[in-house]
This record gives sequence, C-alpha cells and structure tokens, in this order.
Amino acid sequence: MCVSVRDDKICLMRAEIISIGTELLMGQITDTNAAFLSSQLPSLGIGLYWVTQVGDNQGRIVEALERGLGRSDIILTTGGLGPTEDDLTRESIAKFMGEEMYRDPELLIWLQGVMQNNFRNTNRQMTSNNFKQANLIPSAKAIPNDRGTAPGWMVEKNGKMIISMPGPPSEMTNMWQRHVRPMLAQKFPGDILVSRFIKAYGLGESALDAMIEEYLHSNNPSIGVYTRPDGIMMRLTAKAPDEAAGREILAPVEAGIQRILQDYVWGFDDDTIVSVVGKELKAKGMTLATMESCTGGLLASHITDTAGSSDFFKGGLVTYTNEIKTSFGVDPSIIETKGAISPETAEAMAKAVRLRLHSSIGIGITGVAGPDPIEGKPVGEVHLAISDGIRSATFMGKYRPPRADLKSRAAYAALFNLRAFLKQS
Amino acid sequence: MCVSVRDDKICLMRAEIISIGTELLMGQITDTNAAFLSSQLPSLGIGLYWVTQVGDNQGRIVEALERGLGRSDIILTTGGLGPTEDDLTRESIAKFMGEEMYRDPELLIWLQGVMQNNFRNTNRQMTSNNFKQANLIPSAKAIPNDRGTAPGWMVEKNGKMIISMPGPPSEMTNMWQRHVRPMLAQKFPGDILVSRFIKAYGLGESALDAMIEEYLHSNNPSIGVYTRPDGIMMRLTAKAPDEAAGREILAPVEAGIQRILQDYVWGFDDDTIVSVVGKELKAKGMTLATMESCTGGLLASHITDTAGSSDFFKGGLVTYTNEIKTSFGVDPSIIETKGAISPETAEAMAKAVRLRLHSSIGIGITGVAGPDPIEGKPVGEVHLAISDGIRSATFMGKYRPPRADLKSRAAYAALFNLRAFLKQS
Repeated sequence: MCVSVRDDKICLMRAEIISIGTELLMGQITDTNAAFLSSQLPSLGIGLYWVTQVGDNQGRIVEALERGLGRSDIILTTGGLGPTEDDLTRESIAKFMGEEMYRDPELLIWLQGVMQNNFRNTNRQMTSNNFKQANLIPSAKAIPNDRGTAPGWMVEKNGKMIISMPGPPSEMTNMWQRHVRPMLAQKFPGDILVSRFIKAYGLGESALDAMIEEYLHSNNPSIGVYTRPDGIMMRLTAKAPDEAAGREILAPVEAGIQRILQDYVWGFDDDTIVSVVGKELKAKGMTLATMESCTGGLLASHITDTAGSSDFFKGGLVTYTNEIKTSFGVDPSIIETKGAISPETAEAMAKAVRLRLHSSIGIGITGVAGPDPIEGKPVGEVHLAISDGIRSATFMGKYRPPRADLKSRAAYAALFNLRAFLKQS
Repeated sequence: MCVSVRDDKICLMRAEIISIGTELLMGQITDTNAAFLSSQLPSLGIGLYWVTQVGDNQGRIVEALERGLGRSDIILTTGGLGPTEDDLTRESIAKFMGEEMYRDPELLIWLQGVMQNNFRNTNRQMTSNNFKQANLIPSAKAIPNDRGTAPGWMVEKNGKMIISMPGPPSEMTNMWQRHVRPMLAQKFPGDILVSRFIKAYGLGESALDAMIEEYLHSNNPSIGVYTRPDGIMMRLTAKAPDEAAGREILAPVEAGIQRILQDYVWGFDDDTIVSVVGKELKAKGMTLATMESCTGGLLASHITDTAGSSDFFKGGLVTYTNEIKTSFGVDPSIIETKGAISPETAEAMAKAVRLRLHSSIGIGITGVAGPDPIEGKPVGEVHLAISDGIRSATFMGKYRPPRADLKSRAAYAALFNLRAFLKQS
C-alpha cells in the first residue's frame, strides 16, 4: 500500500474519491468536495491516488466502484444520496455488493422527525420520495447526517471500505468532521503525513523552482509548488510516525527555503494576506479604511472575510461615480486635471477616506474594470494608493479581464502593497 | 458512440477529461478547468462520461490515457505542461505513444521570443528548464498558447484524439476558445445538444421535483435539477441537428415548467440575480446604494461584478462600527434602543445610505458574522432592509457559518428581496 506525493516514495493506505452527479459533468457545479477531502486525507496517513467524476448512471457508478476497489483500500463517494430519481448511489452500491435494499425502521423514524421539523420551519411540502433515504443493505451501516435528510453509508468488503457521503458541501463536511474522520483515525493508526505550507508573492513558478532547486529533489519531505491568486505556494510534506517527528523533518528545509526567499515569503499554513496585515496593523495600533472604485467592494469584502477584522478595519466606501468620490472629500480639480483613472486620484481617495473614517491608513483604488476603456485608459489599468497622512505610496497594475479576475488581482495587489508599506513604517 | 445526459438515451461522440496535477489531489486547488470544459462540450455535440484527476506521476498518467482511449473518442487533458520537473504530461503522452521527443526548432524560436518579452516586463530570471516546453513527438502538433509559455499538444491515433492544454485557467480557456473549440467543431459535425437553464429561488429540491414531476421522465429534452448559492436551477437539454430544431424541442417544456413555477422563476441561462434586478432598475430609471455591516462589502462586490452596473449602482458604504454608521446618518438612538443587530437599524441604514448617496433605493444589512454573538444575538442572524423613501421592507435570515458562506447567503437574500420589492413598486 504505497502512495505518491511527488513520486512513488511514500507508502500508506490508498484512498480514492468518486464524485457522483451529472451536474459535475455538465459544468454547472465545481467539485469542491473532492478538493476538501483531498486536503483532509494526508493528516490521517491516507494517500489519494485517483479522483473520478461520474454521472447519475447506475452502470457507470458500478464500474467506477469495481475499478476503485480493485486498486484502492478506501473509496469515498460524494453525491447521489438525495431523494430524487436520479440519485443512484445507494442503488449502485447495492448492485455492486449483490444485496437487496430494505427500508430500515430506525432510520425511517429519524428521517420522519427531521422532515417534520424542516417542513414546519419552511412552507415546503413533504414528499414520499424522501423515504428512500431510509434504505440500507445488510452490509451497510448508516452514518448520521446532522445537517440534512440523507444519511451516509459505510460498507465493508474484504477488509476494504466504501464510505458514501451526501453531495451538498455543508452536509458532507459536517458528516466527515463529526463521524467519518474520527472513525478512520481509529481504524488506521500508523505513519502520517505532516505538511507545512510556505506562501510567497512576486515570483514566477520557474524562477522560484530555480531558486530552491537544491530542495526540489528531496523525498522526505517532498515539495510541491503551486501558483494561486494570492501568489505562489510551496507545500512541504513529511512522512513520520507522529506530528512532532514530522515537524522535525520539516524544520531544516523550511528554514533553508526561507533563507533563500527572504522577503518574498509572506505567510505559512492557514495565513491569509488579510490575517498577516491585520496582525501587523493591530501590533502597531493602527486602523484601516478603503475607498474603492473599480474593485467595487471586493477589497472590503476580502478584509471582512477574516474574523476579528473589526479590530482594525474601520470601514469602506465604494465610490462608483466621480460625484460620490468628491462628496467624500476627493478634490474635484484633481479628477478634472489628472483624470479619474490616475495615481493622483487614487492618492486623493486614500487620503480622503482616511480623514473621513478617522483611520490611521487609507487605501484608494481606481481603474478600468471594463468592458470599455475610460478616459482613453485601457481595460485592466488600475491605480492604487496607500496613505498614512504623512507618507503616500502609489502603484500601477495592468490586469487581464474577465472582470471578476481583474477585480481579484487588484484587490490582492492592494493588500500586498499594504504589507510592503507597513514594513517601511 | 452514445453518451448519457440523464440516462443512456442520447448518442454522441464521447469525450473524457483527465486533469493532471498532484496539487488537485492535495486539496490546494479546485478543478475549475474540468467544470469549464464540461460546460463547453454539449454545444459541440460531444458527450462527457468521465473526469479523472491524477497526480504528477508518469505511470498513472499513462494508465489514465490507456483507459481513457479504450472507452472514449477524445481525451482532453489539462495541466502538467509547465517548465518544472514534475510537469510530466508531454513525457507521458510520448511514452503512451511509444515515440521519442525532440526539440522543435520553430517552437523554440517562438518560446524564446515570448520569454524575452516576459522577462523584459518583469524582473524574473530566464531559466533553461523553460525550453522543454518546445518539445514535440512526431505524432503531435503544437497548439498555440497566446497567454503563456506552454503550447498545447494535439495527437491523433486510430481516429481518436488526445488534446493537451495547460493548467492555468486563463491560458486553458483562451487556448480552448481560440484554437481547440473551432478545430473540434469542424471535425465533428452532426447532432448537437442544446440547453436551456431555468433559475428559481425559494423552493427545496424535492418540493421542486414533486411540482414538475410530469416533465422529469422526459428523454428529449432531458431535465436535471441542481441547488446552487443563488437558488435552484433546472437544465433542459435537447438533442437536435441544429440550434433552431433544439429550441423547438425545448420551448413547450420550458413554457410548461414556467406555468407551474410562476414567480419562483427569476431568470434563464446566463442571467444572474444582479443582471435581473439591474435591468429592472434601469427600466424604471432607478438607482441603488448599499450600507453593509456583516456582509462587509460583498453585496457591493457582487453588484459590481456585472458589467454596466455603474448605470444603476451609485455606490456602497461598509460601516463596520456603530460610530461610522451614525457618521453616515443612522440615528444613534435607534442603535441604542433597538440594538445594532435589529430590523430598525437595518431600516435606518437603508434610509441613510439612500439619502447620503442620492439613490432611489437604499439597502441596509446588519447581522452577526461571527465567531462570537453580538448583543446576545446568535452568529448568523442577519437583518436586511430595503427603502425607496416612501416604503420600506425588512427581512430576517438565519444563516450557518462558515463566515464566507454566511456572507454570501445574506448578500443573495438582499438581492432576491430587492427583486420582490421592485415587483411591488
């Protein structure tokens, strides 16, 4: 039982994910469940080789189960446990196991209770197709669902295991955390994978690879490099009997990488750029306010995604018109002479919001979100400014559409420039 | 060559997606490329049976290619075309085809040009490992990459096809739209799938299924039902020789479903709730402004994700403290007597921002984003209000953490309540 992180070097229990639902194959839904589960398995010492998405079709679900149990020890399925006719996960497992389904009386009582409760709170009708969610086969144990009406299934066969969880992410993650994960942890003790994430900004992937090349061929820990909207991330993964031993393997490699990358590194593990600048602002006793034009509130929303942001974030203004910019204190003559899309206007916005919301630091962002150019400036040109009342810094970025990507890149640029600004003050 | 939409009824060219990259199996990245490609295939008359994610491991990539070409006509791969050592897609295809790679002189000249250009604009180092991106095998044709340094590969074998595209979504979608899609459209004429999406809000999945049951067993068009953050969506898919014939099959079913669901239906196809309320506001010559507390700018950001929102959106205020709420015109005695988390404060916020930003309609949102209760109100309690200066409507919702989900649910609730408000005015 060997699993690869970068290559075939680390041997563990093998798991496989089967994501079930035609909607996944029609492009309406992105498979975030598989991403969540794959992030969970390493710390259980379980390796993941394969993720397969398959439609609501009994023949193909059975084929996926057969192939999966042929090459893996644990199959995790998500989706297809709902009440409707195209929810076929239970039927498929029953067929694969060669067993008949029956309606479990205990499950039925539980289900009726949950449904009565749901239908009291909403005005929704109770429908008889819901009852198929109380079905089991002799080899299956039900896994409680604290968030919905679809219980999971746990099936064991020849020392291997099929665990089926519902598709809605809130139900699935709750079932995983409360029931499936503790059960797997107890069932499969042994070596585990311990990971450390190092986050950098301002470097391309191949330049980074060249800089840290001496570490890239390491097997324990192994290293993976990924680009993301908030920069570039390195994952260091060690195999060890426990957490402490894993940390010991990771420490020297982490220190070596940090020595090389220096100030490109901005965070670790669950750090977000907001949590990093927030910590710095709080340490300095400083507060922040924003005035956004082209990012339209996304910067404020990113900041307020972080719990505790109310300790340093005073508030934000989304000033989508020049009239509203000036009504909050931006000098109209600056907009007139320099243009709304200019470093001067960005700086005036940063200064105005700082005064208006009584914060230590103000950020102003103005730019062209598209689809059309403004004042002859092309789509994607963004000016941002940061001011603490004494010192101002401005920055220009050029970002590609689509609009949502462009907004996201500009909002992150503001946060990374704020980090640099705070380092100098 | 048959593909299923809901069952084995519709026969088309079969495609399969293989998403390559250990990062997908480690949970750091969600596979949005597969979702994008699966939404593209139906209109080409190409069906999708399987999506497989596999790590950066040559043995397993070759295994996936073998299995894929055994059961499908077209394999689309994404990822693994980068310059680093764990980018193994080219090497794996070469091994699968039993061919040797060579460095293509024309590709190399193109690549050097792109890289010189890139390295002039940034301060990044050029590294020799980039050159492997100019490799080909005799059976492969390069597909141009207008957004990066990794060309795609197009390989034909016994009338079947492997098409490899890079992993970064902007490069992949650009290559698909400009080069791969036109090539496939030319290569596979014949019956196509035509889809229509009907979007509703305020109904659960099993209640909806019960209401439209008479249509659920239809084969052409087939119907799928999916829940999403912005409500519940029905996908109607018809198989027909061309677009017009497909629309004719869809029309009566669409009309029937609309007759049943009435006002639960809020949009179709690419409609977003922002585009729908935006159109209505523009038709009435009305403008909008927002004052957000717990959603922290997310509502403004959702609104400004839509191109043309500047026609009706005057701007927004993110008032994270009571002090700033009152500085923008919320009566402090209301916050004192009713609490900051109350319908009265939400209404005062809606009225204040309407006056402050001179808009026809104001929206106020206040609530508990967590992690701790406020004023004895639990995490997830949200009050929102809409006011046009004469009439006000308030609404209370209770949403579950995590914080980002709760913010998203509350922001969507504001938009759907705005739709209802506009219908009554």
